[in-house]
Amino acid sequence: MRENLRGMSPYGAPQLDVAVALNTNENTHPVPQPVVDAISERVSQAAGQLNRYPDREFTELRTALAGYLGHGLGAENLWAANGSNEILQQILQAFGGPGRSVLTFVPTYSMYPLLASGTGTEFIAGRRAEDFTLSAESAAAQVREHTPNVVFLCSPNNPTGTALGLDVVRAVYEAAAESDSMVIVDEAYAEFARFGTPSALTLLEGRPRLIVTRTMSKAFALAGARLGYFAAAPEVTDAIRLVRLPYHLSAVSQATALAALEHKDVLLSTVEDIKMQRDRIVDDLKRLGLAPAESDSNFVFYGGMADAQRMWQHLLDHGVLVRDVGIPGHLRVTAGTEDETTAFLTAVESYLQSA
Amino acid sequence: MRENLRGMSPYGAPQLDVAVALNTNENTHPVPQPVVDAISERVSQAAGQLNRYPDREFTELRTALAGYLGHGLGAENLWAANGSNEILQQILQAFGGPGRSVLTFVPTYSMYPLLASGTGTEFIAGRRAEDFTLSAESAAAQVREHTPNVVFLCSPNNPTGTALGLDVVRAVYEAAAESDSMVIVDEAYAEFARFGTPSALTLLEGRPRLIVTRTMSKAFALAGARLGYFAAAPEVTDAIRLVRLPYHLSAVSQATALAALEHKDVLLSTVEDIKMQRDRIVDDLKRLGLAPAESDSNFVFYGGMADAQRMWQHLLDHGVLVRDVGIPGHLRVTAGTEDETTAFLTAVESYLQSA
Repeated sequence: MRENLRGMSPYGAPQLDVAVALNTNENTHPVPQPVVDAISERVSQAAGQLNRYPDREFTELRTALAGYLGHGLGAENLWAANGSNEILQQILQAFGGPGRSVLTFVPTYSMYPLLASGTGTEFIAGRRAEDFTLSAESAAAQVREHTPNVVFLCSPNNPTGTALGLDVVRAVYEAAAESDSMVIVDEAYAEFARFGTPSALTLLEGRPRLIVTRTMSKAFALAGARLGYFAAAPEVTDAIRLVRLPYHLSAVSQATALAALEHKDVLLSTVEDIKMQRDRIVDDLKRLGLAPAESDSNFVFYGGMADAQRMWQHLLDHGVLVRDVGIPGHLRVTAGTEDETTAFLTAVESYLQSA
Repeated sequence: MRENLRGMSPYGAPQLDVAVALNTNENTHPVPQPVVDAISERVSQAAGQLNRYPDREFTELRTALAGYLGHGLGAENLWAANGSNEILQQILQAFGGPGRSVLTFVPTYSMYPLLASGTGTEFIAGRRAEDFTLSAESAAAQVREHTPNVVFLCSPNNPTGTALGLDVVRAVYEAAAESDSMVIVDEAYAEFARFGTPSALTLLEGRPRLIVTRTMSKAFALAGARLGYFAAAPEVTDAIRLVRLPYHLSAVSQATALAALEHKDVLLSTVEDIKMQRDRIVDDLKRLGLAPAESDSNFVFYGGMADAQRMWQHLLDHGVLVRDVGIPGHLRVTAGTEDETTAFLTAVESYLQSA
């Protein structure tokens, strides 16, 4: 085994069998029956030809994804893979790798350093303000200081939940352009953003080194289908084609994603409900004297308790699993259904009363 | 983009619209209706919970794959990914990578150098005899000469089609063990081997650095489902777990593969028919004065024509697409259905008469 792997543990949230699992930012709403039927129908149609390799260019899916995103994007701007992680891995294989570096601003998505390590890319941990926010000035200055080959901006940021202003993306892009670096805005949770929060998709035109990544795992409630994608200039998709494994996206994955996109209105109807529960969590945690961050995602990051580890255990004892993201004094909770959210808030209250 | 990618073309067989496509070693038999129904049923059951991440350990699938392989293997010996290519990529990420090397014996599967490049592993092209065979002595000597970290043995070999004797695998393993190297036997086409050809699975016991890879793309007629797997010591699967992307195998992929394994007898019933067509190709090409290699796979590699490029074009003009694998004077043809095989042999005859 490679020396840098020795003693490591595999990535992944602890999988415990609990009544209310609010630890992995899943969309806790089951896939509605009409969408289940459409997926079955599409897969059934594809299954008879599974002896053939899938469409290596998955053109129908890329066209459908472009149609969903809008902003004048076409199939040539789109790319997809088995989850956002594979998307980000392909980006690092093409633009990072040995002798190159990726800069991001911690705390952020904990897979970034692992993807850097897996592709031999040097990982540079940039800084955020004490309240975990990131200003345009600070971000751009750090890009100029480190001149990385790739910058990852997570917006809304995981685990803190807040979206970046587009001024930050613009400033980072300008600083990165001075050293021909790629800027990736990871918008896995973008559909949950608060009203009026613009997407970095609006910045793509005229910025050939900008990549905006998305996923069907969250708003589309399809974490189990593993479908991540990005929008960028056609030259970027051409570059990724050089590192992707041939036929990386199965015909079954393509069929599943197409069926979901045909029923996007039904699937995305859960988003408003989740945002309502998310806002309810923020409001109630504030009311209870805790300190939640503003959230543009389907989860809430909060501090303000004396002993986060004890609260985590108390919640688990009451059947609610949240995520200890390794930031002292803080926890992260996924906004679930109304009942799940109630179970979480009730357990928080009982903890505060007992503490 | 990385310098080593500039000027490259994406890997992949030319996709031309022809009546008889015998160029990518697909199983040309469509998936039978009972299996289509089983896949639809399994996927339908999984679809309602696609909002949840899939089983990261895919234990049910690993158990089913172990049951299929036999040889006393259990779930702890098995691993799966999105196609054999991802399996081999994961193996190189864990055991190869920057500062390390992989040795194989060319001509062989053309993805190996690309997978080495993609993972920053040095690629060492070992030699075969002039008739493309590989002896135990030659293979072991080359392993001792280069002391690679990883050895890829393709058996049956693609594109030449012939299986390696187990004496070669044993000799390579012994030589590789002297430098703690891993030995991978790529048995993508093993189910098509001639009667009495043993699998390297029989060598796994007591050889903790041996990995035998398989795929559902060929004998199982599931190229479109992208399901590769391997069998090895549990320590090997533990190592791969450190480099796999979390949740790399979708719930839909797991459901599809499980349905296929439940109907393996129906799916594998095409294997005997394909072997018959394969033997028919070998016999007829010999009768026509050409020089086919002995084949343990679902394809035939042949030479003996004055101008392989002209024959390729003639076949295409007659609606039959075969593969020019870049070896002067040779072509590779997939054994298709009886009608497809007839179309190929008829076009070969007409070429020889016109030449």
